[in-house]
Amino acid sequence: MTENNKTNDTNIIYIGGKPFMNYITGVVMQFTTNNVKEVIIRSRGKFISKAVDVAEVTAKKFLKDQGVSVKDITIGSEEFENQEGKKVNVSVMDIILIKK
Amino acid sequence: MTENNKTNDTNIIYIGGKPFMNYITGVVMQFTTNNVKEVIIRSRGKFISKAVDVAEVTAKKFLKDQGVSVKDITIGSEEFENQEGKKVNVSVMDIILIKK
Repeated sequence: MTENNKTNDTNIIYIGGKPFMNYITGVVMQFTTNNVKEVIIRSRGKFISKAVDVAEVTAKKFLKDQGVSVKDITIGSEEFENQEGKKVNVSVMDIILIKK
Repeated sequence: MTENNKTNDTNIIYIGGKPFMNYITGVVMQFTTNNVKEVIIRSRGKFISKAVDVAEVTAKKFLKDQGVSVKDITIGSEEFENQEGKKVNVSVMDIILIKK
């Protein structure tokens, strides 16, 4: 899973350890330069809090006048093997932003 | 804001710095012992990730057979004054669990 998949799913932004403003810029560019109608902000584990910040700041500050708002939020769990080969669960979240 | 308001809003669980299992127990008890139909898992800032974990573990593991699932998720922002008296924003999230 790459942090910014620009080839197939241009409207999915994966939240990771990069600086906060990188993700804001990523979301804003999707709606403005790339002119998409829907952006999914995808996150897991500790990055979920950051994803909510990204969604709030983009929708309430940067793109408020462009009619961007939260359409839906879903949560779930993914199983993966940690470094010791033990299966552990991690929470995942998708925040879907939509431009009216 | 207290972490566990048991007087007025018995069905709101505030996520904070206590051990993870405290919150799981809190949610489970609301649905079982107190027999409520709806529990709100409320969190802000860095505790949002933990809140998603609490919701996932309760709904998918502990209370799955009792028909508990996620009904709705909302996010927002709150303004507050930090220690230097500067106004800052913090993200907030409510996860609503429901028992069918």
